[in-house]
Amino acid sequence: MTPLDSELQTLRERLLAMASRAESAVARAMDALVARDDDRARGVREEDDAIDQLEKEIDDLAIRLLSKAPLATQLRLIVTISKIARDLERVGDEATTIARRSIELSQEPQLKPYVDLPRMASLARGMLNDALAAFVTRDPAAARTVIPRDREVDALNKQLYRELASFMIEQPANITRCLNLMTISKALERIADHAKNIAEDVVYLYEARDIRHSNAGKL
Amino acid sequence: MTPLDSELQTLRERLLAMASRAESAVARAMDALVARDDDRARGVREEDDAIDQLEKEIDDLAIRLLSKAPLATQLRLIVTISKIARDLERVGDEATTIARRSIELSQEPQLKPYVDLPRMASLARGMLNDALAAFVTRDPAAARTVIPRDREVDALNKQLYRELASFMIEQPANITRCLNLMTISKALERIADHAKNIAEDVVYLYEARDIRHSNAGKL
Repeated sequence: MTPLDSELQTLRERLLAMASRAESAVARAMDALVARDDDRARGVREEDDAIDQLEKEIDDLAIRLLSKAPLATQLRLIVTISKIARDLERVGDEATTIARRSIELSQEPQLKPYVDLPRMASLARGMLNDALAAFVTRDPAAARTVIPRDREVDALNKQLYRELASFMIEQPANITRCLNLMTISKALERIADHAKNIAEDVVYLYEARDIRHSNAGKL
Repeated sequence: MTPLDSELQTLRERLLAMASRAESAVARAMDALVARDDDRARGVREEDDAIDQLEKEIDDLAIRLLSKAPLATQLRLIVTISKIARDLERVGDEATTIARRSIELSQEPQLKPYVDLPRMASLARGMLNDALAAFVTRDPAAARTVIPRDREVDALNKQLYRELASFMIEQPANITRCLNLMTISKALERIADHAKNIAEDVVYLYEARDIRHSNAGKL
């Protein structure tokens, strides 16, 4: 193993540490929502700070390694890691949004049991997890299977939006709570988007072609 | 001028073409909203496709140039351009969201004259424009002045959210329209966020330090 290989390995490991933090921020925010636990929700903010810090470290290391890496595949790896880090940073932001809205929601009685939101969260977290596993195992075919799953989360978000909008019209007293739930639903939809971006980056990294905005990604 | 310099120049120019498209997509979406002009709103989608295409071209060129660029400053330029392109791509997405909601809004009578949304749009577009001008003139000090302006847009978005939420509670018949206006307000807030990201990238590029998530960015 050359010194560069070892530094690239460090870069990969920092990214995985960041991914693990991001996944746990989402899990914690959703736990806080369901358990109506404000302390747990406040913990997400700290998790998000750690995620932001990891992104900076990754970017600094990435820039440093770019000037040492002679091979196109190494350059592509470094750039991809930097892009994935930015998506993970945004996942942390969305988890923070969920946590903030959970705190607002816990100040009023719960509207109804949460069914769709935990389901969306579980789908989004599964996508995130599988996209990162595909990065680790260098498996673009596995990454490719993550991409179409985004549509399911999109559909759930749209359905929930419509349901909540109707509910608001029927029961205006619930408007504030419905708005908070809509924001959480949208945050989960965005987390799934980021997971899809990461999956596309992994495909690109290991297949060296860009499938964003093309029909290939929609199959 | 070496062949690499000339290719870097091409990369810069593609980015500026993309920026100009992104700004025009936002302008067009807002014009469509204010003029209640569905045809203009539908034109935003085409603009967004062109923006997506430019992002791909920029990324392909960036990856190709990375393996040829020997200097750390060149590498940093290329990576920064690639990051700015991703932010511009998202600006195009937000413009599409505004256009889509404008079409929904034009199906019902207008709730009231739009004052805050055009103001937010003008602030966000000004930030975008100034961040990119700072990139062109290689002026990190100018880029730095863009960053705090994001807070004004955030404040307007929060204020409008509260006003619209109260309005929905008073007049449930207006809920659908208010939700569309909230989404547009949020989209403008995100465009300002992207402009801020770009400004931070420009500071980083020309001052070689990362000001994200630090107090320096908040002064």
